[in-house]
Amino acid sequence: MASEQSPLLPNQSRDDNAPPAGKASKRTSRIRELALFIWALLATAAVIILAVVAQHHQQTGKPHHGNPKRNLVFMVSDGMGPASLSLTRSFRQHVEGLPIDDTLSLDRHFWGTSRTRSSNSLVTDSAAGATAFSCGKKSYNGAISVTPDYEPCGTVLEAAKRAGYMTGLTVTTDITDATPACFASHVLYRSMEDEIALQEVGDGVLGRTVDLMLGGGRCHFLPNSTEGSCRADNLDVAKLAQDKYNWTYTDDRAGFDALDGGNKAQLPLMGLFASGNFPFEIDRRTRDDIYPSLSEMASTALRALELATKDSDQGFFLMIEGSRIDHAAHINDPAAHVREVIEYDKAFKAVLDFIERSDTETVLVATSDHETGGLATALQEPGHSPVYNWYPQALADASASCELLAYKLLRHISSHPTESDKKLKTWINDNLIIPGLGIKDATDEELTLLADYPDASIEILAAMISLRAYVGWSTHGHTAVDVNIYSSGGHRPESIRGNVENTDVGRFLSEYLSVDVDAITKELRKKMDLGSDGFGVAQAADEFEHYHHQPSAVGTY
Amino acid sequence: MASEQSPLLPNQSRDDNAPPAGKASKRTSRIRELALFIWALLATAAVIILAVVAQHHQQTGKPHHGNPKRNLVFMVSDGMGPASLSLTRSFRQHVEGLPIDDTLSLDRHFWGTSRTRSSNSLVTDSAAGATAFSCGKKSYNGAISVTPDYEPCGTVLEAAKRAGYMTGLTVTTDITDATPACFASHVLYRSMEDEIALQEVGDGVLGRTVDLMLGGGRCHFLPNSTEGSCRADNLDVAKLAQDKYNWTYTDDRAGFDALDGGNKAQLPLMGLFASGNFPFEIDRRTRDDIYPSLSEMASTALRALELATKDSDQGFFLMIEGSRIDHAAHINDPAAHVREVIEYDKAFKAVLDFIERSDTETVLVATSDHETGGLATALQEPGHSPVYNWYPQALADASASCELLAYKLLRHISSHPTESDKKLKTWINDNLIIPGLGIKDATDEELTLLADYPDASIEILAAMISLRAYVGWSTHGHTAVDVNIYSSGGHRPESIRGNVENTDVGRFLSEYLSVDVDAITKELRKKMDLGSDGFGVAQAADEFEHYHHQPSAVGTY
Repeated sequence: MASEQSPLLPNQSRDDNAPPAGKASKRTSRIRELALFIWALLATAAVIILAVVAQHHQQTGKPHHGNPKRNLVFMVSDGMGPASLSLTRSFRQHVEGLPIDDTLSLDRHFWGTSRTRSSNSLVTDSAAGATAFSCGKKSYNGAISVTPDYEPCGTVLEAAKRAGYMTGLTVTTDITDATPACFASHVLYRSMEDEIALQEVGDGVLGRTVDLMLGGGRCHFLPNSTEGSCRADNLDVAKLAQDKYNWTYTDDRAGFDALDGGNKAQLPLMGLFASGNFPFEIDRRTRDDIYPSLSEMASTALRALELATKDSDQGFFLMIEGSRIDHAAHINDPAAHVREVIEYDKAFKAVLDFIERSDTETVLVATSDHETGGLATALQEPGHSPVYNWYPQALADASASCELLAYKLLRHISSHPTESDKKLKTWINDNLIIPGLGIKDATDEELTLLADYPDASIEILAAMISLRAYVGWSTHGHTAVDVNIYSSGGHRPESIRGNVENTDVGRFLSEYLSVDVDAITKELRKKMDLGSDGFGVAQAADEFEHYHHQPSAVGTY
Repeated sequence: MASEQSPLLPNQSRDDNAPPAGKASKRTSRIRELALFIWALLATAAVIILAVVAQHHQQTGKPHHGNPKRNLVFMVSDGMGPASLSLTRSFRQHVEGLPIDDTLSLDRHFWGTSRTRSSNSLVTDSAAGATAFSCGKKSYNGAISVTPDYEPCGTVLEAAKRAGYMTGLTVTTDITDATPACFASHVLYRSMEDEIALQEVGDGVLGRTVDLMLGGGRCHFLPNSTEGSCRADNLDVAKLAQDKYNWTYTDDRAGFDALDGGNKAQLPLMGLFASGNFPFEIDRRTRDDIYPSLSEMASTALRALELATKDSDQGFFLMIEGSRIDHAAHINDPAAHVREVIEYDKAFKAVLDFIERSDTETVLVATSDHETGGLATALQEPGHSPVYNWYPQALADASASCELLAYKLLRHISSHPTESDKKLKTWINDNLIIPGLGIKDATDEELTLLADYPDASIEILAAMISLRAYVGWSTHGHTAVDVNIYSSGGHRPESIRGNVENTDVGRFLSEYLSVDVDAITKELRKKMDLGSDGFGVAQAADEFEHYHHQPSAVGTY
């Protein structure tokens, strides 16, 4: 372009700008003007084109400034470590006859890994893990969105609500359990679920911050004078929620179906479909589907929130938890665990489908709070050399969780108190082991153990199936391994790509929504007294050392 | 800009371009020209700026086409699964008093994860794992760069050599062990190490393809008439290498030191510094450093290859393996394992430093072939509730590997055959447990086990330290968990970002170097007869089921 410029340079036009001022001069001037004009026009066109291209790059390459309408879906696979993925991927390939490079939806959206330790231990629990996500801060094991100084910290959900977003929580355990609790309540210890229920419906210093809750744990919302309550007090939280905070409330499958996939949801909406935990997915499917699945609830929540924010400038924040991946790992049951992960993958896919069809920019980030069980996809049988393989078929053969089978055993024993050991062992083999675990070669030693120690039957059954699948476990608690982060991708979540701290994930959530959690923290600290004076550090240290025993789902059958 | 344009539009200038052609008209024309000129100049300047910016984006954002000079460093952390990282990171924080968000060099270069299964098992061995890297193809456990049809497949190292690159292999185990073997030899089973040694020095159908080998396994290069040989035949491979293939050969620390960090290396260079494996890093440091460390060898190899390619159009390909991370996990020794990972991280950092100072574009990709041991950073003591923590101090207290302590125990017993059990137990406690494992509370039961079963002492010692650290293991073999991928970053390795197959990593290696492994495969298949007729599928199936017992490093002390 430089070579074309020279005949038109102004000093040249000055050089010959004196006489004559005749027709030729005028024509020269006109040609010069025209040439200058064409040059300017072309250059301007080029500027415009380049600017548009640059703008496009900017839009797809960097975060927006300002605050266009956005949705954020945050998924938590409680207790899912890296080994769960190879376990589930290979199981699915085996069962469905897929090629060996077939992958889960999660695999295709792998984004990074998260370090999980809490403020007071190398091994976190779900409460400290969820506080890292909700507040973006490390805290002690057991903490529900309070910092190590026993002061509340504002959460992304609360800040999102204040900023005009709609908010939701969807889980398959108690809605008052640690993970969902951390988004909408503040208590010193996770076991304070009666208080958590109150704060979740809006009976806390911030008022109502949640617009949608789907999950279990109904018992914490019913007065202790009612059957099916697990509250210490006589408060009817479900009624309070409806009367004082305008919640629509449903507690059964018919109520869920009436939501019509979210199309007919009336927010604020609370659906508590189980007294405590939902059944494990492996058991749910054989129980006439009276409980909605995680993916059904996820789709319903997305649709409900989408409709509710249709005419709003702000979108929504939704937390979806695959809660019982953790529980299956706590009892070291690989057959139940793998079905929980598959259902979680299905829910993940449901969110991706929503993103695909939604007009509103939506980011999905999914991660785990910690690993549970020390799961290993290989097991060395004591006294044997290690085998370089594991066997998915052993998991495919099982059609019930060890939890359900143990429950059946205890029920049978209590209704047949005088049965002989021999008869009991035959009953166990014919009614639990063969049809439930799919194991046809149970040893007499195994059956004797089950008959003699029915209270330990969950552990014995889980060991039986793990041994046959060659799947190993190191603990019934949690471990410290880094957990995976998944994302719907794009350039938005660059700050949590690679290996990051769990608090980085939490900070991303509020940054993506451009909401101010610090303002909420200030408000909470002004208005809220958590009674921290009554709690010693010793008590906190004591609590985190102990296994938080999940309330058994058996009660919900 | 649109509003500024209107007074200068040509139709306006045409509108007043008739009479008069006087001074005023001339001045108008001059002003118009000047304005047009400024407009054109500004627009052109804008075009140039935008073009430069776009060009810059292009350069940093996409791979080069053509083939500029490049180096590729590929690191393998044999047997390092995801749990090794949180183990090592927290150990280092604890020992060095670092903050809880301090990370390893590896962590800061986390790139993705790799699926590891082999063609015939969900749990790979190192041979099939390295074949996926070297050939980019899945094969059966035990295969050294041959495909499941027992035919050889060309490797990235061989193709790189043919394309004019210099090549190197650096390990802490036998240079004939599965991982290095897969880059420069082709045999049906990994145990054929005598044949591997020959091919590695150049005595195969392709001639010499390796320019630098640093590692152990000298015994495979010495004739069986010599002390320190482990060959079945009487071939002097070290001599053959020097005489026929012009290798410079060194076998001791003085020879390594004489390389002057690579400045004085004469390629082709073969440095075999141990008869078999190097000692574990935890033991190496206490043995007067007679063996070079992995990071020392890595730096030396990088410098030697850098100098050797200084005047070449092509760079180099170097494979560096942290070989004994795997061995420490095979014996379930967390104290030895964590030091191996730390040394590997140091070698990784050495490569990063090289990249930083090198003028030649260099990419570093690091991954594992598989996980070993089913390591879990938590352990539930039998009969106890799980504890939500693990204890790095127990690993810090240890100053010797269980392998070395077991060797000392066997040596002591053989030289004190008549010693009483009581005296032996006291000796074990005073000479092995307290000073070596750093355990001051060994139980009488533990000491009795060691005295009664000295042949199982590695396992007993490893269990003692694992229990005190609360570190769990599921097997002495491998597992199927996805392993981490690390990269020096940039935009080059986008094809292996996220969750990929191990063969994708292998394909990236040859793609990055723009070398033709298929041509090598064709040549190999034409020239090479692996005697596949003699091998049945049954034999292959049989082999992969069995634990490949690593040759003990004790022989190298």
